[in-house]
Amino acid sequence: MSKQQSIPYKIYLKESEMPKQWYNVRADMVNKPAPLLNPQTLQPMTAEELKVVFCEELVQQELNDADRYIDIPQEILDFYKMYRPAPLVRAYCLEKKLDTPAKIYYKFEGNNTSGSHKLNSAIAQAYYAKNQGLKGVTTETGAGQWGTALSMACAYLELDCQVYMVKVSYEQKPFRREVMRTYGAKVTPSPSDTTEVGRKILEAFPGTGGSLGCAISEAVEAASNQEGYRYVLGSVLNQVMLHQSIIGMETKAALDQYGIVPDIIIGCAGGGSNLGGLIAPFVGEKLRGEKDYRIIAVEPASCPTLTRGKYVYDYCDTGMVCPLAKMYTLGSGFIPSASHAGGLRYHGMNSTLSQLYADGYMEAVSVEQTAVFAAAKEFAKVEGILPAPESSHAIKVAIDEALKCKETGEEKTIVFGLTGTGYFDMMSYEKFNNGVMSDYIPTEEDLQRGFAGLPKVEADM
Amino acid sequence: MSKQQSIPYKIYLKESEMPKQWYNVRADMVNKPAPLLNPQTLQPMTAEELKVVFCEELVQQELNDADRYIDIPQEILDFYKMYRPAPLVRAYCLEKKLDTPAKIYYKFEGNNTSGSHKLNSAIAQAYYAKNQGLKGVTTETGAGQWGTALSMACAYLELDCQVYMVKVSYEQKPFRREVMRTYGAKVTPSPSDTTEVGRKILEAFPGTGGSLGCAISEAVEAASNQEGYRYVLGSVLNQVMLHQSIIGMETKAALDQYGIVPDIIIGCAGGGSNLGGLIAPFVGEKLRGEKDYRIIAVEPASCPTLTRGKYVYDYCDTGMVCPLAKMYTLGSGFIPSASHAGGLRYHGMNSTLSQLYADGYMEAVSVEQTAVFAAAKEFAKVEGILPAPESSHAIKVAIDEALKCKETGEEKTIVFGLTGTGYFDMMSYEKFNNGVMSDYIPTEEDLQRGFAGLPKVEADM
Repeated sequence: MSKQQSIPYKIYLKESEMPKQWYNVRADMVNKPAPLLNPQTLQPMTAEELKVVFCEELVQQELNDADRYIDIPQEILDFYKMYRPAPLVRAYCLEKKLDTPAKIYYKFEGNNTSGSHKLNSAIAQAYYAKNQGLKGVTTETGAGQWGTALSMACAYLELDCQVYMVKVSYEQKPFRREVMRTYGAKVTPSPSDTTEVGRKILEAFPGTGGSLGCAISEAVEAASNQEGYRYVLGSVLNQVMLHQSIIGMETKAALDQYGIVPDIIIGCAGGGSNLGGLIAPFVGEKLRGEKDYRIIAVEPASCPTLTRGKYVYDYCDTGMVCPLAKMYTLGSGFIPSASHAGGLRYHGMNSTLSQLYADGYMEAVSVEQTAVFAAAKEFAKVEGILPAPESSHAIKVAIDEALKCKETGEEKTIVFGLTGTGYFDMMSYEKFNNGVMSDYIPTEEDLQRGFAGLPKVEADM
Repeated sequence: MSKQQSIPYKIYLKESEMPKQWYNVRADMVNKPAPLLNPQTLQPMTAEELKVVFCEELVQQELNDADRYIDIPQEILDFYKMYRPAPLVRAYCLEKKLDTPAKIYYKFEGNNTSGSHKLNSAIAQAYYAKNQGLKGVTTETGAGQWGTALSMACAYLELDCQVYMVKVSYEQKPFRREVMRTYGAKVTPSPSDTTEVGRKILEAFPGTGGSLGCAISEAVEAASNQEGYRYVLGSVLNQVMLHQSIIGMETKAALDQYGIVPDIIIGCAGGGSNLGGLIAPFVGEKLRGEKDYRIIAVEPASCPTLTRGKYVYDYCDTGMVCPLAKMYTLGSGFIPSASHAGGLRYHGMNSTLSQLYADGYMEAVSVEQTAVFAAAKEFAKVEGILPAPESSHAIKVAIDEALKCKETGEEKTIVFGLTGTGYFDMMSYEKFNNGVMSDYIPTEEDLQRGFAGLPKVEADM
């Protein structure tokens, strides 16, 4: 008890203790994740092919499954110092409220203007683009978190930033759009008349509000049409998961300082970059047989990629212009319901996490959004932080696990990732506060419709 | 240089190093601020009279000009641990961008859901109300920062919270309203039909969007109409400035750890609580003749309380139901233009700061809002944080002072208060980004109209 009391509410690493390397979990895997496939040839993508779309150094990172540690360049470390280390928070108030013997910690990634962990990879991708002598980058954004993060990174490095924002979000979420513009990004509602794919879609569906798939296709085309531009992506890819390992590296360093060993590690999972980053050094120990942790991925019941998807090759984008990845997927044509956790509405899952899940190194649960918002409000009231709907998926399951401890009397240590804040999600909170939010679980028929669009790839046979 | 390089980007006090006392600067003053006057009798308010409206312990703090240090109760210290210590940031990137020999530091108070320093006093006021056995508190809010902070504090302590929100903000700023509701506060657009004063105003001006003065009057009436309720206020009062001294105490402790002595301390000034809190221990040293610091209050040119106001007794509210304070004021009837720094649109100034300014212990400058937003964007791009318009007034003057150092070659140390984030101010940024923001400086005639409404008080004669 005296030891426990000596643990502060928030553990901040000193600047000198901040990790200087990313953790590449693929180096520890015996079963490596399957390679990306060329969407035309269905053969493994070569570095040369990838370099047409992505920055060179990022291609190396994408393909590297051998080096456990990868040095973080000094310029990126300096940027990290602006908003990191992120605090590892002991949730004393939540524990008290739940009256649980469990010890709950969360790694809070929301203390920066992008409002989430996305900035960890945005600065890395922007840095490598700048370093390669590029003029700018293009990307897509849905609700706007990734676009905001990339805008910030590009502003810092004086790199041009072009964001294709799903039109319905562009119109309904003017605040995030304006944050991006404040950071100097050019924000275009998608579909637009600036690309061929955009013009085609506008012709076919004049009144469409757009989709993430369409925005990706436009961003990829815009990059290939401009000299000195490349396309960058905020999740799903292994390079993104690598950059996000800064979350797990800091978390582990902070826990180690106090001799704390987690029993359960929980993260929300959309494309997988946050969860993959949080668990990286822990699952590495698990893969090497040095430690055992329960690792839980939490996904929305409305988009149950891991819990109800298939582990096969699929397109990463709905436009089918990006490489194929072997992953848990609901099919690139699966249409999730209008859930309020926009960041978790992705049909697939990072290929490394998919392999880890297939091999039994992690569990997955799905939760419904009204239960998630109820947990979010409970958390906000006692811990002070108003969480993003995405992050609140992890809160919900952390609370569930803590309440199980209350029943059994076990003093388990639970660590979860709190990826961001909900300041730009107040319309969703309003729906919940007014009691007009509903849940949606896809039927078997819904899933079959998504699966019907899966590509036939020999490697899956 | 080597010493300088050892200073991290962010200085966080350890939890064990966090201040356990507030600093009451009035104890150091030879010329004490003038007492509050009863609006009916124009005689100094007694503790008994103040207790009708305010919580008992807070009345003691309001009247205490003798004790330099006041212990912070453990429950408040525990709450502070949830979101404090706030970082003292070395603005390395801004210095580099400005190419200045000046060393710039800022104390960042935006890392909490209320988005500003307001939470420091909200938890204190809610705690004393709870401790007194009250059921709830009432307050007013304009843009919503204070209301949000109070909602958070009340949710934590399970105290009822009733917020009268200026109707035009209630309608145009639904996000902050929804944050308050998420924390369980009852938010009423003002004027409303729930109070006599509200009904009267609605009758006289059926389509009115409300005003802060009206909301104050409604909140005061609501408190007096309900058993077990008191009214609380987010700025202007000495008790609020006392609670905000946690900002200055932490800042001084962090600077002392590295042997840093500021030359210039800068803060934005609306009602004065942030500035008063930041400078408290420093101006204490100055008052005692131990150290000398340049202290600069920054106010908007559209509401130039210190730079163009009169130092006389005036009503604290436009409804004239609150006590009178001797302060720099533009007159309680002065109508500031629709500036985008809602938190700085107050006609008066905390009486302690007013006395310090009158006695020459601090300077004041006024700045125009387009220059403020330009500074805000420059800051956001290099330091990552998107600042509140209010806070950006201090940024503007800090940059100005740093550029003077560039001219003279002086390596001055500048410390400024960054009170909060601008996430809920994106409509204002949009105006600036689109080039449609204008400046407004009141004419001499505008000022004379405000002064014409000043009460005639013998103490001023």
